[in-house]
Amino acid sequence: MAGSIYGSIFKISTWGESHGKGIGVVIDGCPAGIEISEEYIQKDLDRRKPGINKYTTQRNEGDLVEILSGVFEGKTTGTPISLIIFNKDQKSKDYSEISKIFRPGHADFGFESKYGFRDYRGGGRSSGRETAARVAAGAVARKILEYLGIEVIAYTRAIGNIEIDYDNFNINERFDNPFVMPDLKAASEAEKILDDAMLEKDSVGGIVQCEIFGVKAGIGEPVFDKLDSSLAKAVLSIGAVKGIEFGLGFEASKVRGSVNNDQMFIDKDNKIKKVSNNSGGVLGGLSDGSDIVFRAVFKPTPSIARPQKTISNSGQNVEIQIKGRHDPIVVARAVVVVEAMAAITLVDLILSNMCSRIEYIKNYYAKLS
Amino acid sequence: MAGSIYGSIFKISTWGESHGKGIGVVIDGCPAGIEISEEYIQKDLDRRKPGINKYTTQRNEGDLVEILSGVFEGKTTGTPISLIIFNKDQKSKDYSEISKIFRPGHADFGFESKYGFRDYRGGGRSSGRETAARVAAGAVARKILEYLGIEVIAYTRAIGNIEIDYDNFNINERFDNPFVMPDLKAASEAEKILDDAMLEKDSVGGIVQCEIFGVKAGIGEPVFDKLDSSLAKAVLSIGAVKGIEFGLGFEASKVRGSVNNDQMFIDKDNKIKKVSNNSGGVLGGLSDGSDIVFRAVFKPTPSIARPQKTISNSGQNVEIQIKGRHDPIVVARAVVVVEAMAAITLVDLILSNMCSRIEYIKNYYAKLS
Amino acid sequence: MAGSIYGSIFKISTWGESHGKGIGVVIDGCPAGIEISEEYIQKDLDRRKPGINKYTTQRNEGDLVEILSGVFEGKTTGTPISLIIFNKDQKSKDYSEISKIFRPGHADFGFESKYGFRDYRGGGRSSGRETAARVAAGAVARKILEYLGIEVIAYTRAIGNIEIDYDNFNINERFDNPFVMPDLKAASEAEKILDDAMLEKDSVGGIVQCEIFGVKAGIGEPVFDKLDSSLAKAVLSIGAVKGIEFGLGFEASKVRGSVNNDQMFIDKDNKIKKVSNNSGGVLGGLSDGSDIVFRAVFKPTPSIARPQKTISNSGQNVEIQIKGRHDPIVVARAVVVVEAMAAITLVDLILSNMCSRIEYIKNYYAKLS
Amino acid sequence: MAGSIYGSIFKISTWGESHGKGIGVVIDGCPAGIEISEEYIQKDLDRRKPGINKYTTQRNEGDLVEILSGVFEGKTTGTPISLIIFNKDQKSKDYSEISKIFRPGHADFGFESKYGFRDYRGGGRSSGRETAARVAAGAVARKILEYLGIEVIAYTRAIGNIEIDYDNFNINERFDNPFVMPDLKAASEAEKILDDAMLEKDSVGGIVQCEIFGVKAGIGEPVFDKLDSSLAKAVLSIGAVKGIEFGLGFEASKVRGSVNNDQMFIDKDNKIKKVSNNSGGVLGGLSDGSDIVFRAVFKPTPSIARPQKTISNSGQNVEIQIKGRHDPIVVARAVVVVEAMAAITLVDLILSNMCSRIEYIKNYYAKLS
Repeated sequence: MAGSIYGSIFKISTWGESHGKGIGVVIDGCPAGIEISEEYIQKDLDRRKPGINKYTTQRNEGDLVEILSGVFEGKTTGTPISLIIFNKDQKSKDYSEISKIFRPGHADFGFESKYGFRDYRGGGRSSGRETAARVAAGAVARKILEYLGIEVIAYTRAIGNIEIDYDNFNINERFDNPFVMPDLKAASEAEKILDDAMLEKDSVGGIVQCEIFGVKAGIGEPVFDKLDSSLAKAVLSIGAVKGIEFGLGFEASKVRGSVNNDQMFIDKDNKIKKVSNNSGGVLGGLSDGSDIVFRAVFKPTPSIARPQKTISNSGQNVEIQIKGRHDPIVVARAVVVVEAMAAITLVDLILSNMCSRIEYIKNYYAKLS
Repeated sequence: MAGSIYGSIFKISTWGESHGKGIGVVIDGCPAGIEISEEYIQKDLDRRKPGINKYTTQRNEGDLVEILSGVFEGKTTGTPISLIIFNKDQKSKDYSEISKIFRPGHADFGFESKYGFRDYRGGGRSSGRETAARVAAGAVARKILEYLGIEVIAYTRAIGNIEIDYDNFNINERFDNPFVMPDLKAASEAEKILDDAMLEKDSVGGIVQCEIFGVKAGIGEPVFDKLDSSLAKAVLSIGAVKGIEFGLGFEASKVRGSVNNDQMFIDKDNKIKKVSNNSGGVLGGLSDGSDIVFRAVFKPTPSIARPQKTISNSGQNVEIQIKGRHDPIVVARAVVVVEAMAAITLVDLILSNMCSRIEYIKNYYAKLS
Repeated sequence: MAGSIYGSIFKISTWGESHGKGIGVVIDGCPAGIEISEEYIQKDLDRRKPGINKYTTQRNEGDLVEILSGVFEGKTTGTPISLIIFNKDQKSKDYSEISKIFRPGHADFGFESKYGFRDYRGGGRSSGRETAARVAAGAVARKILEYLGIEVIAYTRAIGNIEIDYDNFNINERFDNPFVMPDLKAASEAEKILDDAMLEKDSVGGIVQCEIFGVKAGIGEPVFDKLDSSLAKAVLSIGAVKGIEFGLGFEASKVRGSVNNDQMFIDKDNKIKKVSNNSGGVLGGLSDGSDIVFRAVFKPTPSIARPQKTISNSGQNVEIQIKGRHDPIVVARAVVVVEAMAAITLVDLILSNMCSRIEYIKNYYAKLS
Repeated sequence: MAGSIYGSIFKISTWGESHGKGIGVVIDGCPAGIEISEEYIQKDLDRRKPGINKYTTQRNEGDLVEILSGVFEGKTTGTPISLIIFNKDQKSKDYSEISKIFRPGHADFGFESKYGFRDYRGGGRSSGRETAARVAAGAVARKILEYLGIEVIAYTRAIGNIEIDYDNFNINERFDNPFVMPDLKAASEAEKILDDAMLEKDSVGGIVQCEIFGVKAGIGEPVFDKLDSSLAKAVLSIGAVKGIEFGLGFEASKVRGSVNNDQMFIDKDNKIKKVSNNSGGVLGGLSDGSDIVFRAVFKPTPSIARPQKTISNSGQNVEIQIKGRHDPIVVARAVVVVEAMAAITLVDLILSNMCSRIEYIKNYYAKLS
């Protein structure tokens, strides 16, 4: 139960610290025959990369991924895929301050309580940099979903009090602004919010919405490994996420059953439809054939330059002002991380579903040579 | 990845359908030496029992638990504990209607898509009755936490638009009303809401809050098996839950980092304190020594007597009016289920934490005879 | 890592003690649509049943299996299958002696060292009776293999020094003698060996051979979850088994590579053949398309009526004479247990193999409605 | 069930092909606070290194291990330890022959059947080189055992027909000969056997014996995750191993229960002793406090230069003569691999055992700050 391995059939095992030699992931259980390349994976990594604009840290990470194993002649072999991203920018900063102080809003105190000491350089294992390995693995999962006609798209729905207006919604514009917001008007308002926060050495939170298209009905496992419970774990495992909701989410507590239930019908093209999608595409833990929709809330970046009260590991009351440049918001860079975790989770449950009927198994086995 | 087994070290394996012979759970990995009895487990089961008041189904389930294995001379032996609850009230109702129709808001369509057919009697495996097995296992987990001085308490925070007022909050009153609300005034308002909904053959949703006391800092595993991500999976795996949030939750997206961060200090008794608990007791996936606080939203009961549009499994548009008595709200009975899933999850992570330092292992091994 | 759950996709969770209320198993991950009945499962259980002849204990166990869940209208539903065998014959014997004494050759000392105390009645969880749950689950696995055209057959190859002669080999005669030996001459010699041992209040060991027909090439997972390593764990987990070997087994250390290698050719019917099967059907952990062949050694029954030196749990040197009737040999009743564990393991690896190629996944997903 | 991840609490995830960029392992679940260094790990790797003498391949692998994560200031941090060994000697040989031919005794046919194609360069993932990652992880496990006073020692017991004579046994001499035999006389006889085989372009098998000292009673989990069943899986997962036996092993089938049972007594120093160790230190799947003893058989190296009949992947009968230098025996280099797998397995079960009693858990939790 070590904590850095995820998945049941499509398994990922991540490793690495912010300021160690590098970070990486081993994917075990990736099917053979998938066309994959460093370029394909790099595209997703570039979306998470720092230094893109003034709202992201300027660290020159590069984040260049290398495939070390599991791909031969351009295709996955079925054996473990090892992906590595060497850390380029590990200048030996002066960590004497944070080495002995627990930063508010960070895992410093928890890590030291758990392990007795910690790699304090840049947050060590609890750094957001850890998510690069998830994004790399997520790109492989996304490729599998491509073969099946499934698409995972996330975007920023809110930053601080600024929420997108679905009348202005244009998914194609999401990369035309620094916040991955599919509403340019909202994005420009968010810019002001951010500029204000930065002036005041403060940070802002936000909400990411994720939508998944093309998932057929019946994916997910009843009881514990439900589609939504699995996605919840996947997404809450991303640092800074404090909540998740599906479909109508917390609003569902305020409407009646007759409103919340998505009534079904057969349309004139003989397709199964629902009059609404309050379920967010999941009922009883199984996909219901509609788009899967969920939202995750990210807290404001805990690293702020303002003075804060805290304690040292020798039990003293101290004040801390976190130095260096930190993202005033993590949401924009986190969008692709949400997509990655959703894709990985979905692949795992789709593979699991292959074993759900004896007829599937008979068909497959009969065809083996 | 079958879906009905949960946990890594303290593992539970549940089984049973609403109208089969019974339901049950096997707990594998329960430590030896714990004093446990059918009476102790029954107390929690009675909290989930139907038929307590007019807001719960009248089915005479009894829900009497039997211990079949793993307990000897009043104490757990370390080997699997098999708990069974025989179904008493499985009258062979007429299921001809729902056997061929997919009820809106239910997993019927998903189950039939997944498996090709389904046990339609009372919802089969996707019935809320499945949670009785969780509650039974949860009682064993709760007992373990008792040995460690940890307490898990959940209550109803909101029903429909009625939210409790923390000025009226009295945890001891939570069992003095049909909704497990620790605010009698809110409970009496909720009663009206429910009566209205019942008159209109409709149902209502709500929010459960859960608080855990006595968890020391450092519990949880970094990266994927975080304390909060694990609790999220546990709680979202309960039918009807559509979202979860920790601490400030979705509100965290609207405040600045300087507000959201919980500053720390050493108080005059030399204890580590935080000025706030916006984290909900979890930072970076590890407990931070504060109380753990989360909320889960339950959708309104999908089974309502009002006519609804839906489809049959032969592809026809039909109308359904669900017969029989159904809870107009699931929240009250679900409170103990939330506690159960939280307790089980916490035990698992505490056991996992035992392996986190070589000094713990040396100390334990040196003492073995 | 609790120990009583086995499998990755097709998972079994067993429970129960020799003299508790019963024993049972929950199968999670069994595909939907399999025709299964109590009668089908009972047939395998009857092969393990005690009291069949003078070489097996006379306990009137009955061993009647009941299906409690997961089967509807004669077919598996895809949800957990709970199987239970109530203990019929739990007379409250006088256990005062063995409750405080560690029987040589048994797990008594280990259990008490591990857990601090133990359910000493009839061996508790470490009783051979535990294997009845495996046999019940194995019958379900065997049924799945039937759908695929795979057959698992085990038999007694040796009892004491008596080994079957493959010139006399007739698999159809294996049930015509008390030892499941497919060589009636050897069986009659074994009878003498056993009669002698019983006269001298002693016991005898033996060897079970298992052969699996119809496994196509490529089943098994490289590196750790090899077909042979998985079967080895499965079979060594049966009490009293002290070793396993595949194909030529330990003899392989004595021949040259040129002899041991199974050379391959295409026969006139255009089928792939090997000139020998020294590999036992497994190469590099994957099935090679030949019959799978392995042997397991069972030690002599440790419960013997002769006086033996041992110690008490209060640290005294004592002498023990184990009372009651005990099988002078476990091999005959264990044959079906070996088949069960092999079948369960094979099903799990076949399901796993479904996820090994993207083309399999595409084909399956495209066909979902 | 991907196959390249092993362990339940102390988990290893290996990756890499013979002629790819490198091989490696990620260890997740290693306790914090262990002093570990590249030098320490290298010592074990050097024992597996090729090119030591004329009986091992001359490939200049170097096999230099690098620690990429999880170690800070000389101690493990509790987070994943990534170990990498870059492949130095991947000359682009001419693989045109073996790319299309299935070598007898190898996994070529199985791999191609499973995945549709394979990385044929040097055996790809099924190369013996894969075991270097196990040895690296095994060194970390061995270090943990050092803290507990446990020692794992393996040696060559037999090569071909030459078995060591325990009258000449001297464990300290095992590294004084090319075969890791603790009997120099036997080693010199083995040398002749090997020289003969090499002259005839053939290969030889052997037996490795492993002994583990310092394991207290009660380690192992009842039923499926027994100490011996777990070790069996671990060891059979090493390529070329065809069998395993504990204690008396296959000989146990030939002796009576009165002989096989290890009678117990308290000696004059008040220590628990057994008159024999036919159990090999394991009873009912739990350690019994004696030394753990098992033997594994390795088949002769399948790569031989003699002409062999086989088939091509286009379905032709062909003859193959495997070119290049190959070890005429794998046993000597495999000794440290057996130790590694045993150490990893034992650590996992010892960690699991920490959770076996509520008193252990109470003691540990009470001490947390």
